[in-house]
Amino acid sequence: MSKPAIGFVGLGAMGFGMATHLVQEGYPVHGFDVSPASVQRFQAAGGIPVSSLRESAEGKSFYVCMVASAPQVQSVLFDDAGIVQYLPQNATLLLCSTVPASYAQSVAAELQSRGRGDILFIDSPVSGGAKRAADGTLSIMAGGTEEALASGRDLLQAMSAPSKLYLVPGGVGAGSNMKMVHQVLAAIHILGASEAMGLAAQLGLDARQTAGQIIRSDAWTWMHENRFPRMVEEDWNPGASALTIILKDAGIITTSARQHRFPTPLCTTAEQIYLSSLLQGYGPKDDSAMVRQYYPSPIASVTASTEDPSDALQLVLDLMLGVNLVAAAEAIAFARYLRVDLAQFYDLVSAAAGGSKIFNTKGLEMIQGQIAEKAPTGSQTIDEVISKLETVVQKARDLHCPLHLGNAALNVLFTARRAGLGREGATSVIKVFGQE
Amino acid sequence: MSKPAIGFVGLGAMGFGMATHLVQEGYPVHGFDVSPASVQRFQAAGGIPVSSLRESAEGKSFYVCMVASAPQVQSVLFDDAGIVQYLPQNATLLLCSTVPASYAQSVAAELQSRGRGDILFIDSPVSGGAKRAADGTLSIMAGGTEEALASGRDLLQAMSAPSKLYLVPGGVGAGSNMKMVHQVLAAIHILGASEAMGLAAQLGLDARQTAGQIIRSDAWTWMHENRFPRMVEEDWNPGASALTIILKDAGIITTSARQHRFPTPLCTTAEQIYLSSLLQGYGPKDDSAMVRQYYPSPIASVTASTEDPSDALQLVLDLMLGVNLVAAAEAIAFARYLRVDLAQFYDLVSAAAGGSKIFNTKGLEMIQGQIAEKAPTGSQTIDEVISKLETVVQKARDLHCPLHLGNAALNVLFTARRAGLGREGATSVIKVFGQE
Repeated sequence: MSKPAIGFVGLGAMGFGMATHLVQEGYPVHGFDVSPASVQRFQAAGGIPVSSLRESAEGKSFYVCMVASAPQVQSVLFDDAGIVQYLPQNATLLLCSTVPASYAQSVAAELQSRGRGDILFIDSPVSGGAKRAADGTLSIMAGGTEEALASGRDLLQAMSAPSKLYLVPGGVGAGSNMKMVHQVLAAIHILGASEAMGLAAQLGLDARQTAGQIIRSDAWTWMHENRFPRMVEEDWNPGASALTIILKDAGIITTSARQHRFPTPLCTTAEQIYLSSLLQGYGPKDDSAMVRQYYPSPIASVTASTEDPSDALQLVLDLMLGVNLVAAAEAIAFARYLRVDLAQFYDLVSAAAGGSKIFNTKGLEMIQGQIAEKAPTGSQTIDEVISKLETVVQKARDLHCPLHLGNAALNVLFTARRAGLGREGATSVIKVFGQE
Repeated sequence: MSKPAIGFVGLGAMGFGMATHLVQEGYPVHGFDVSPASVQRFQAAGGIPVSSLRESAEGKSFYVCMVASAPQVQSVLFDDAGIVQYLPQNATLLLCSTVPASYAQSVAAELQSRGRGDILFIDSPVSGGAKRAADGTLSIMAGGTEEALASGRDLLQAMSAPSKLYLVPGGVGAGSNMKMVHQVLAAIHILGASEAMGLAAQLGLDARQTAGQIIRSDAWTWMHENRFPRMVEEDWNPGASALTIILKDAGIITTSARQHRFPTPLCTTAEQIYLSSLLQGYGPKDDSAMVRQYYPSPIASVTASTEDPSDALQLVLDLMLGVNLVAAAEAIAFARYLRVDLAQFYDLVSAAAGGSKIFNTKGLEMIQGQIAEKAPTGSQTIDEVISKLETVVQKARDLHCPLHLGNAALNVLFTARRAGLGREGATSVIKVFGQE
């Protein structure tokens, strides 16, 4: 059976990979982008170039929207020349852009109010980076009506890895909420990778050795492994993942958190440093360039001292262990507050860009503690985590190295201690974020 | 009666003012500094120049040490050529530098262990800025034995305003602790002045008008009034109060807070931004240059729009009101934890560089609530403060303006809300910092 024609808008780093993968899978993909160069590149990769939104939509029963932000989505869908008026009856429309859940819901409402309730609309943000987009192994979080999800399923499966298509209960908006709480971890870990490597440089540690040791340890984060090569090569211009992208996602998170009056101290700290960097001109650079906020010259140029580096390395690991613990608590507490399915959240994070070893262990304990109302056993106490993290923070202070996340995490832990939780297990730090 | 000869070391911005004021009061002051230019300048102002620590100390029954940091104090007092060996029997030694309380105590111990227990040692840090130093109207927080305080009293009074000499109960270290908790407010309000004026610029407000309105409002801080003229004139090189000075004080606070495992989220946030700025080369500049962290060009160049600016101005005021409230809670909670005399702390702050209208009202309620165990009445709720502050933070986010303190304060307030305090009075935010 021949595959249906697909309309596609947004051929950026992620969209280009997704669209070309669909081409390789045998779909005739009609791709549009505001940048003619991107359309030409898509044609060279086997895609069918089109020169207008109208052309991309007319006669296409399946359409993928992968532009960069909610305002762009609004324009592409509903402007005078927007696609909604050109899509055929009962077309299936996948919104893969990262947008606020409330915005995805507003799209569904606007389709209704414009008399296009026939369109099968799926709120389906993605995660995984440009390479997995091109390989068709993304994580996709899809929310919509049963009918819409059934119709879009083949296309969603073509872009995602076998076990990484999450059909999120809750309809339109649920996919975006799932993506958002995932991005809490992504936004923190992206800055965390730079903070750890910046401190390592200040401590005189060899960058590549240190990164290797982090990646093989309990301090591992997906972001650390993914961003380090670009960070050490200073492969920033243009960025494979521009600062403005994670800044946009962080803005969705903190705006939503404010609407819910929910504390997100680490994510907010990261966001503010991203904003500071934007002011310094870092917007279009790769987000791994954040290492400059901690160390003024290339970390690859650090000449490692001949002393035994194991104590210094341990400081870097302890920094990440402390930050990743509080990050897991912040993300899980917010997900729980938003009534996100926590088991599905765990499955998603542990196999996606927000992943960390600490989330897989302590995060799982937090989630299970919630579900089973069982206190974690045999784990480190909050006081023990404090003891290690405060040693790192003091050392960084002595070196005049900022530790934005390390200090924010330590203050959350201190707040937990002041609330009488010091001798409880480390996972009890989630209690600072309030009860369910 | 003729006034006794005074030895004096440390003729920087503050020390120069203090020493020359003593000269004007009729004291023969023998001044030394590592910078020969400073000594010459002191001579031109009527002081007696000396060319060594030895010369500054020999035969001086009264000695004032006003160097910049604990390591400098250690060197000046106890190095091979240090003054302790040259001071006469029963000399009175005033340590006016800002140092950790634990360091001041170590000086007393080292005097004993070196057989100079005869020296009457006073731990007496000062506050008020260079102008008040020169006018002899500083605030001074003095701790020591009764005998030492009696001996040093005339000299302390000569340098302080009539009602601003605080004899702090608790001996050596108590003066430094009092100064430290005062500096919690100073460190926050210095960044707060830049944050408010940076946001004002982003909002298109005229800088001078806005500052005038802030200064006449409940959002007033001493630091705002003091720093604004240098900020708007960009009178930064060299700084009247270099970034490195408040950074050093912030380091004393956060190091002590870590030792006590006490949360200081706003002060730590300010410190981390100071460290970031240090990395960018701002160390020797005036701390009012922090406005560059929020607005990339001179705020004086903002062309005010012709629209009614009252809504935008209210956002700036609400930012400061929220930050100043949480700052007061943080400082008072830490002071209470350290068993600082809160009534004296209030007197000090309300007449010194850490002062704010909010401290004078809400801070006083917090202090009285503690003392009298009486809940404040008729005040705004935490939810009401949140409502105003989150509006500002969202607006700043839309403008891509960092609000490091605004976001940190909002997260503290959200944490209070999650702890069930949303409908309590705004002063209840102090409960986030734990019970007494």
